[in-house]
Amino acid sequence: MEEFRDPFVLPPSVDREKFHEFISRAAQVVGIMNIMVISDPSQFSKQDYMDSSKSHDMFHVLEKEEFLSSAVVMPRQVPDVQDMMRLANEFEIPVWPFSTGRNIGYGGAAPRVRGSVALDLGRHMNRILEVNTDAAYALVEPGVSYFDLHDYLVKNNLRKDVWMDVPDLGGGSLIGNTLERGIGYTPYGDHWMMHCGLEVVLPDGSLIRTGMGALPNPQADKNKSPHEQEWNKSWQLFNYGFGPYNDGIFSQSSLGVVVKMGVSLMMNPGGFQSYLITFPRNEDLHKIVEIMRPLRISLVIQNAPKLESILVAAALAGPRTKYTSSEKLLDDQELDNIAEQLNLGRWNLYGALYGPQVVRDSLWSVIKSSFGNIPGAKFFFLEDRPDDLAMQTRNTTFQGIPTISELEWVNWLPNGSHLFFSPIAPVTGDEAQAQYQLTRQLVQEHGFDFIGSFLVGLREMHHIVCIVFDRKDDESRRRAYTLIKTLIAAAAARGWGEYRAHLALMDEIAGTYSFNDNAQMKLNEKLKNALDPKGILAPGKNGVWPANYKKEEWVMPH
Amino acid sequence: MEEFRDPFVLPPSVDREKFHEFISRAAQVVGIMNIMVISDPSQFSKQDYMDSSKSHDMFHVLEKEEFLSSAVVMPRQVPDVQDMMRLANEFEIPVWPFSTGRNIGYGGAAPRVRGSVALDLGRHMNRILEVNTDAAYALVEPGVSYFDLHDYLVKNNLRKDVWMDVPDLGGGSLIGNTLERGIGYTPYGDHWMMHCGLEVVLPDGSLIRTGMGALPNPQADKNKSPHEQEWNKSWQLFNYGFGPYNDGIFSQSSLGVVVKMGVSLMMNPGGFQSYLITFPRNEDLHKIVEIMRPLRISLVIQNAPKLESILVAAALAGPRTKYTSSEKLLDDQELDNIAEQLNLGRWNLYGALYGPQVVRDSLWSVIKSSFGNIPGAKFFFLEDRPDDLAMQTRNTTFQGIPTISELEWVNWLPNGSHLFFSPIAPVTGDEAQAQYQLTRQLVQEHGFDFIGSFLVGLREMHHIVCIVFDRKDDESRRRAYTLIKTLIAAAAARGWGEYRAHLALMDEIAGTYSFNDNAQMKLNEKLKNALDPKGILAPGKNGVWPANYKKEEWVMPH
Repeated sequence: MEEFRDPFVLPPSVDREKFHEFISRAAQVVGIMNIMVISDPSQFSKQDYMDSSKSHDMFHVLEKEEFLSSAVVMPRQVPDVQDMMRLANEFEIPVWPFSTGRNIGYGGAAPRVRGSVALDLGRHMNRILEVNTDAAYALVEPGVSYFDLHDYLVKNNLRKDVWMDVPDLGGGSLIGNTLERGIGYTPYGDHWMMHCGLEVVLPDGSLIRTGMGALPNPQADKNKSPHEQEWNKSWQLFNYGFGPYNDGIFSQSSLGVVVKMGVSLMMNPGGFQSYLITFPRNEDLHKIVEIMRPLRISLVIQNAPKLESILVAAALAGPRTKYTSSEKLLDDQELDNIAEQLNLGRWNLYGALYGPQVVRDSLWSVIKSSFGNIPGAKFFFLEDRPDDLAMQTRNTTFQGIPTISELEWVNWLPNGSHLFFSPIAPVTGDEAQAQYQLTRQLVQEHGFDFIGSFLVGLREMHHIVCIVFDRKDDESRRRAYTLIKTLIAAAAARGWGEYRAHLALMDEIAGTYSFNDNAQMKLNEKLKNALDPKGILAPGKNGVWPANYKKEEWVMPH
Repeated sequence: MEEFRDPFVLPPSVDREKFHEFISRAAQVVGIMNIMVISDPSQFSKQDYMDSSKSHDMFHVLEKEEFLSSAVVMPRQVPDVQDMMRLANEFEIPVWPFSTGRNIGYGGAAPRVRGSVALDLGRHMNRILEVNTDAAYALVEPGVSYFDLHDYLVKNNLRKDVWMDVPDLGGGSLIGNTLERGIGYTPYGDHWMMHCGLEVVLPDGSLIRTGMGALPNPQADKNKSPHEQEWNKSWQLFNYGFGPYNDGIFSQSSLGVVVKMGVSLMMNPGGFQSYLITFPRNEDLHKIVEIMRPLRISLVIQNAPKLESILVAAALAGPRTKYTSSEKLLDDQELDNIAEQLNLGRWNLYGALYGPQVVRDSLWSVIKSSFGNIPGAKFFFLEDRPDDLAMQTRNTTFQGIPTISELEWVNWLPNGSHLFFSPIAPVTGDEAQAQYQLTRQLVQEHGFDFIGSFLVGLREMHHIVCIVFDRKDDESRRRAYTLIKTLIAAAAARGWGEYRAHLALMDEIAGTYSFNDNAQMKLNEKLKNALDPKGILAPGKNGVWPANYKKEEWVMPH
């Protein structure tokens, strides 16, 4: 076993010898070229993609070594994943699957349990298996990114038929983002709702297809391995199949490894127009949200619009030092000045219209007259702001074209890293106002400028508060960590819960969903122990600890 | 225990004494007035709602006594349901919950396992707990029927704000229909998709709230029983909550008893127009479906339209004897004649337009010009057909107003009963044609006239084939049963699976979802045994048998 370097970190209760044996066996599964043992984290920043970003959280808020894999294993195909599950059970070694590892702001590719063996699904399993423009769907493997699918649509001249939805950043995996219940900005922005059909490796290594995928295609070649068998023609057309609809238990969960997923595509709407509406005063928030709710629920606003506080666009346009040389937090007067400087409002609403001109015109007239009731509201199309990078980015994203420029705001501070705090709230002026006030106050008390947006899904808002910190400044990191824990508790005390969590905060957030003596968590644990009795798959994911882990020893100190 | 009559049927492996003891204990839970022991099935037809329809399948295709409860227990509130679960575990007696028992065509209120104790949830638990017109949702208990919620909306003058979706018949429970994944005809017709938030009693008697409901409302009175505690304000606004999204495993399943459910309502669309398009020739089916697919996926057709073969409307308008005195099956010439007589086509498409006049006009012009390509297509609004009962019914249903007239087609034959055969297929002309040909041929080979409709959900069609038989004619019943089993096998051999099943066919249909050596069923069984180790809740539901049942002894003979 001399061929393997010593790992920097080992899985819990596993000694070096056992680990080496495991790795040696894993090499028989995936081939030795598809295993990387993590030996020296101090070298991470100098090494390339494969050697580093797949083993830890690039935007680590705790020490870089806190959430770290012992090795990264890259399955070449589905049976490798099945074999790795069986091997993990045999050795009782935790594995942490990821698709492309771009779960940024929530932990990236890093595992919850230090020393877990990462499964890099996306490295080899990255085929677009089908794009059907008649029924408007695609079937993809974990490594297919939004960029990949977009490139495919462009190269094959298919965007005239179908559009995809993309989240803020296009580098991530469709499967990864969907399983974390990420969102985008077209009418297909609820990614989980818009998936259809999963192929899943269960913790015991068995392979299922959900929904109509469980019905064999009569033309399938039964001599092939199940994962290669031709799928049922309705797999990507009808989610539910027959009997219990199991898909949901594989989202934000540790109950299975998704290796294929169907994604619904939008028919080319026959026309598109993005818009920006700026509102001058901080106090306009209440009115904006009250106007938005009925327009959104009735689909006059067809997509999930993005209502940003001024610093999102400001941070996109440049670092903090562009606006101030002071270390002091920006006050309202300064924020007003920045807004004026950028020809923006204190609140800025980005949205889009979809459909032929006649449809867009009629929707726009309703939207314009509704928000026109707010004094000083200004309305822009892209051509009115030729130099506006933020608007260009959204104009692209809102028509389902992936970009990477959205993350530029992370450079607000030097060595900028970020955490997302993402509570859900009803779409009312009162709730928006209360949530803005509470979060801004706490953010500022912890020494950060407030950068946040409200995304109106349909009946609820995702409030995305971006906590930008300097990852090379221990004190800044510590403040960010304290802040987000404070935010979680303060939000729960107001009835607001988060929809998604960074590794370091999963237990904390899961703990707020405590109705009836944590009845939901008890159910989750029961499901976990039934499907994964040895607790090998992503233990601790979203606060669900298998029976063989002493939960109290694993939760982060408060 | 003299107060209880002897039951006609007992739960499996339970003697009279143990059963009486169980009933006596159940009486302590719900009160003796809320228990009915089924003593004499020959009296069923003479008795009222409470005494009969809640214990068996009114439209029984097997012997009336095949699927029969030993008793009906009527919980008054959630803790009664919890206590009944605990009692069932203690006595190892199977319970079969239903909401209103109107799962007609699929078994009604009857249990899969003869002798199960029925839980009539709807009898007392029938409150509309909340209707929110700002965010457009309702929160209901199992006994709330579509009529009940509609009456509430009308009485409180709320239809100006919100509309509901209704299935073909309005007497059923919102919860019951949604859990069986029933469908309706407005833009909110996918009932499962349009639910938001469940309160569920698990087989062990514990109580969970899913999604945001797991996050306590800070204003909730902790001294109250959990089921009475004020819920989180986002419970009906955001489905997913945090961590695994568990709702799906409680649909078409035996893993929990749903006692509260949120349902999304549609904003009043500001205008409505139903329409009928008739197509003269049987062969038009292929073209109709090809035209429909892109219109539906792009939401030019905003609702799930209903494409009916001629006999649906004919059967609604009168019994078979109105059209023929012959026992012989109707041939194509006769079907043409009936179509002409009713001023209909061989295929008839019922749909609706939603929105202000300008929106409806623009959609209608696209729809009309598209289907106008089919020679002989005719277009009607309601005012063109003042005496058309079918169209009046759909005009009502399509705007979310419940009716009961839709079931009239069951009187096609004397003592008319029906079974539904409901396979899913891609929305293509080829698939529609093939499915129509196969099902019509088999239906006719078994001596029945073909009555069927295609409902285009979005990317798939539910093909609803109505098998009308004479329930007082043993031979007719037997033929219907043979027919539907033949249909299930023939459809599976073509890759078509059913979305829902009658009690007598659950094992058969579940057996067709057999990908990879029945991997999905093995998962379902694992979940079942984990949550319900004694197998007390709805054993056999949709083919899922708990470990304490010998499956091979329970499946229906082939």
